[in-house]
Amino acid sequence: MSQEKQTEISALGEFGLIERLTKDFPLRNPQTVKGVGDDAAVLSFGGKEVLVTTDLLLEGIHFDLRYVPLKHLGYKSAIVNFSDVYAMNGTPRQITVSLGVSSRFTVEHIEELYAGIRLACEAYGVDLVGGDTSASVTGLVISITCLGEADKEDIVYRTGAKETDLICVSGDLGAAYMGLQLLERENRVAAQSGKDFTPDFAGKEYILERQLKPEARKDIVEELRKAGIHPTSMMDVSDGLSSELLHICRNSGVGCRVYEDRIPIDYQTACMAEELNMNLVTAAMNGGEDYELLFTVPLADKEKVEKLEGVKMIGYVTKPELGAALVSRDGVELPIKAQGWNAFTRSENDA
Amino acid sequence: MSQEKQTEISALGEFGLIERLTKDFPLRNPQTVKGVGDDAAVLSFGGKEVLVTTDLLLEGIHFDLRYVPLKHLGYKSAIVNFSDVYAMNGTPRQITVSLGVSSRFTVEHIEELYAGIRLACEAYGVDLVGGDTSASVTGLVISITCLGEADKEDIVYRTGAKETDLICVSGDLGAAYMGLQLLERENRVAAQSGKDFTPDFAGKEYILERQLKPEARKDIVEELRKAGIHPTSMMDVSDGLSSELLHICRNSGVGCRVYEDRIPIDYQTACMAEELNMNLVTAAMNGGEDYELLFTVPLADKEKVEKLEGVKMIGYVTKPELGAALVSRDGVELPIKAQGWNAFTRSENDA
Repeated sequence: MSQEKQTEISALGEFGLIERLTKDFPLRNPQTVKGVGDDAAVLSFGGKEVLVTTDLLLEGIHFDLRYVPLKHLGYKSAIVNFSDVYAMNGTPRQITVSLGVSSRFTVEHIEELYAGIRLACEAYGVDLVGGDTSASVTGLVISITCLGEADKEDIVYRTGAKETDLICVSGDLGAAYMGLQLLERENRVAAQSGKDFTPDFAGKEYILERQLKPEARKDIVEELRKAGIHPTSMMDVSDGLSSELLHICRNSGVGCRVYEDRIPIDYQTACMAEELNMNLVTAAMNGGEDYELLFTVPLADKEKVEKLEGVKMIGYVTKPELGAALVSRDGVELPIKAQGWNAFTRSENDA
Repeated sequence: MSQEKQTEISALGEFGLIERLTKDFPLRNPQTVKGVGDDAAVLSFGGKEVLVTTDLLLEGIHFDLRYVPLKHLGYKSAIVNFSDVYAMNGTPRQITVSLGVSSRFTVEHIEELYAGIRLACEAYGVDLVGGDTSASVTGLVISITCLGEADKEDIVYRTGAKETDLICVSGDLGAAYMGLQLLERENRVAAQSGKDFTPDFAGKEYILERQLKPEARKDIVEELRKAGIHPTSMMDVSDGLSSELLHICRNSGVGCRVYEDRIPIDYQTACMAEELNMNLVTAAMNGGEDYELLFTVPLADKEKVEKLEGVKMIGYVTKPELGAALVSRDGVELPIKAQGWNAFTRSENDA
């Protein structure tokens, strides 16, 4: 490795690094419709458009086997990829699964992981079509690639949001993050109290499930289709609402206003935030791992959207000059900053 | 992790494990033409067939940064995936690249890796279309997925070899393995002699290049097409000739006879084997990482094949009852056993 000027990766962050690394890769093939920069790449081989997305999950960074059962981990690993395909308004069809497995794992462990992947494939009608399994000197590595399909005219990118569009989000936010806080706390308590400790999760089932067994919003994509709504832009909320709103604003060349009191938050999320003395809005805006759909629709679709179950209008798209802001309950505009989950800073903190 | 009966992964090996894990995944989508079990999956979305293959490379298992420059590693990581698409008689078009990067790597290191990936993409006309980059607590993780395309009637599986077919292989075998032996030896010597040691690679450039910067045999696929030869089965030689021959025999339900004196071996490979006092045929049969193409053609194509540059006929396909055997120089038939590169046993040995 060369000894010239060296830059810490954390100085760029994940998105900065990816931008720097991929900028010198021109697209050469007419079959490549959209490369880096959305939830999935879009490829065209003459029939339906092919969507491709991939996720790498590393032990100690993305999951902690002290509180994530392997079956849940398998399920979630698949779901996060399906979610990216739905976020393009497509249908996931196939996955490949590559595993790196250290010697502390047995065949039965890996079968548990696969049982979770199988459940996800059954629930979403997806085929496992390939992969690669090898030894690892250090913990578990899971790399999943998902292929999906969509008609060309159905695909929704991040680039189409227009001034006056309504900003919508499905489900509720912040619960997965609170679920993780709970698991981490119980794990700390367990470590201190020794073997007899039994964690008490009563009344917190929802936030745990959101963390351990999230679902991809296939149902919302279908609802939108039935209602005849074609979003102008769409993403899934994996890094946190703030981060995703900024992606859409930047990619569409717009600004936005989102109302604090419109952000959907579950009762259990709110209780947990209070119990842990954490800021609820921060959790909902920056927690991530919600796998809900964030999308924009033309103002003309307002009535149609109002009728959708489990979808909430949280704000509207503005001119780019106005920037991205959260409007607080007392009407103050707070600039939205990307404090999304950043695996590089996180690693710095954890190390 | 559960406490029931536990089986060591090394008891099954990579192929056994994959078979066990994937057997309960029925294919549900008409778009999935071929799932697990060949060089690439084959998908159909209405236009050209889409080929998908993926490889996971882990530091300490698949590469050692003490002797593999990052740029070469990037190049090779891409090439091994392209090779799988060519082995289906397809054309690679896109890749996604996921990286796990520990804190000892800087932006400049990762740029070097990407410079190698970029070179490979340029040389083979492939687009980078996505990926995922995150921190890793332990070393470098590289997961690459490649998409390719082919006309339905052009695709060559492992299943079509028939009795009397000729078995052919491109290039030469065993050189990459000998290159690795050389690098490992020089590294041991360097560790013993301290800082002043300069490894002497003169006259060994070819085997080093075969290990550090292999190529995918795009040219052979093109030659076959021009010559009007449609192989009945094809694979790339990544795990070693023995292992690949057994795959074709099992998948096609046939046996084979391969002649020791027909196996193509480069002069440098032979010299290195002698220098290291290693069995040359074992290296060629089981070394792996050659990324040459192994294929079978109908006997009627014999004359056409003889005219191809860089392709050698090494044997023929037999009835299944005859099994797979290597015919030695003195006419003795030695059963072919899979002693291919197995990351699980290797990990056991290295640990």
